[in-house]
Amino acid sequence: VTPFREDLSPDPDRWMALCRWLLSTGCGLAVFGTNSEANSLSVSERRSLLEHGIANGLDPARMMPGTGSCALPDAVELGSVATRAGCAGVLMLPPFYYRNVDEDGLFAFFSETIQRVGDDRLRVYLYHIPKVSGVAINPHLVERLLKAYPETIAGMKDSDGDQASTERMIANFPGFDVFCGSDPFLLATMRAGGAGCIAATANVNSKAIVQLYREWTSENADAMQEDVTAFRRGVEAFPMIPALKAIVSIEASDPGWARTRPPLVQLTDEKISELATWLRERRFQMEGLSAVMAADQA
Amino acid sequence: VTPFREDLSPDPDRWMALCRWLLSTGCGLAVFGTNSEANSLSVSERRSLLEHGIANGLDPARMMPGTGSCALPDAVELGSVATRAGCAGVLMLPPFYYRNVDEDGLFAFFSETIQRVGDDRLRVYLYHIPKVSGVAINPHLVERLLKAYPETIAGMKDSDGDQASTERMIANFPGFDVFCGSDPFLLATMRAGGAGCIAATANVNSKAIVQLYREWTSENADAMQEDVTAFRRGVEAFPMIPALKAIVSIEASDPGWARTRPPLVQLTDEKISELATWLRERRFQMEGLSAVMAADQA
Repeated sequence: VTPFREDLSPDPDRWMALCRWLLSTGCGLAVFGTNSEANSLSVSERRSLLEHGIANGLDPARMMPGTGSCALPDAVELGSVATRAGCAGVLMLPPFYYRNVDEDGLFAFFSETIQRVGDDRLRVYLYHIPKVSGVAINPHLVERLLKAYPETIAGMKDSDGDQASTERMIANFPGFDVFCGSDPFLLATMRAGGAGCIAATANVNSKAIVQLYREWTSENADAMQEDVTAFRRGVEAFPMIPALKAIVSIEASDPGWARTRPPLVQLTDEKISELATWLRERRFQMEGLSAVMAADQA
Repeated sequence: VTPFREDLSPDPDRWMALCRWLLSTGCGLAVFGTNSEANSLSVSERRSLLEHGIANGLDPARMMPGTGSCALPDAVELGSVATRAGCAGVLMLPPFYYRNVDEDGLFAFFSETIQRVGDDRLRVYLYHIPKVSGVAINPHLVERLLKAYPETIAGMKDSDGDQASTERMIANFPGFDVFCGSDPFLLATMRAGGAGCIAATANVNSKAIVQLYREWTSENADAMQEDVTAFRRGVEAFPMIPALKAIVSIEASDPGWARTRPPLVQLTDEKISELATWLRERRFQMEGLSAVMAADQA
């Protein structure tokens, strides 16, 4: 999630603190995704934040920034910046203004982007989230892209929410890294041969999710998955993105963290209290967050 | 519609020629709308094209550029540029990545944009096209915005496609300029007290549409509307945006005009021939276009 200052500009200090904490829990950083309000940021805001983070010590090898856009030049610019900075990969939404486009048009969009970035280090992860973007990345398109760019097309974030379809993607394309888009599917995805998950609640519940990822073959895996899923279901009682930011604000004792940028609306104080009560009941903690924040301020 | 060079960059020369021709037919220029592939352009591309056009003699008082965006800073930048340049108004899409946002969030987006542009000359036309953008601008939101910014909120382009709803907007908000979003509704909109239409086919069929607009009280109005509607239905046999560009390419004898930017796909040569045959059968002509183009080249 992306924090904002009172004037609604992105806040690099708060952002760095959360990024450092997340890395310390063992997960990677899929910055500038749906939950990051990435499409509510200008290209230059995304670019500045990424460059600031890497210049200040975030390890690009553990980052997969979102670089998709409705506009080809924006996708090219963001993809180039991320690749030159050494990011492990980029997560690309399809262009999402026109809904009923031909597969040829989507292929051309990805293909032109890859050619214009023109960097062998580029690794593209396709971001399939049709319920939000309105534009699906179907298996036939994946097949064509893999055939044309076998080294570059590296994987997919499948946020369709249909685990059967995720498992078909894994089975159909060996060597193609399929991440499920939500942590309730993590264990099933690992058992099917998937690569992991890129999940909203990983912004706050990363320790439990990383543990499940690392120990998915252990006998406790199902119990760990149940716990991870229960946390997600609890957060889902609130609007997801404002709730994630509110959780950070509660854990960091920093009300400013709860801010969202329009068109999203931050949780009311009443809802934040309700969320805080629920977190206390679960004995939930973002352990170590305060230490990271204190170190940043020192 | 926005022409592209072979390298897919916007082509200011072809664009200027069409703009000049359109103005010569008596209509205004709603540049950077859905049919202009505006969301496939970067902010700087839109900005450059607009500034180039005005610097080269397009009358900003006859322009209503699209300035909506998913990202607040982009909407502010484009709105500021257009307003400072003297544009008659701006056509604002709501932010369209997040679909199920609260009305409060949409209100905040428009409100912040208006305040940050901070220019009394700003005139906002709300762009309601829920089947494409996925985000509706409902009457209650219009009412709130009109109450908060009575001088600035000037009107709406209603591309919902439901004429009854357009007529309710006209009836509910006196002084608020309601344009229908498609020319088959022009006569009904004028009879209901609306302001006109902002229509895809006006890119090519502007003479007939302008005539109907000017003579809507004449006894020939129904026949004129029938003819305008028949033209639209004929174009609808093809994908709209590629077809409009193909029509210009046919009329200008300039195959490059047919180009679209991904994710849109230009018409095949076969489809272009089919379209050309249909235009010939209708004796359709963009009269004067060649003269404007020749003058531009001289």
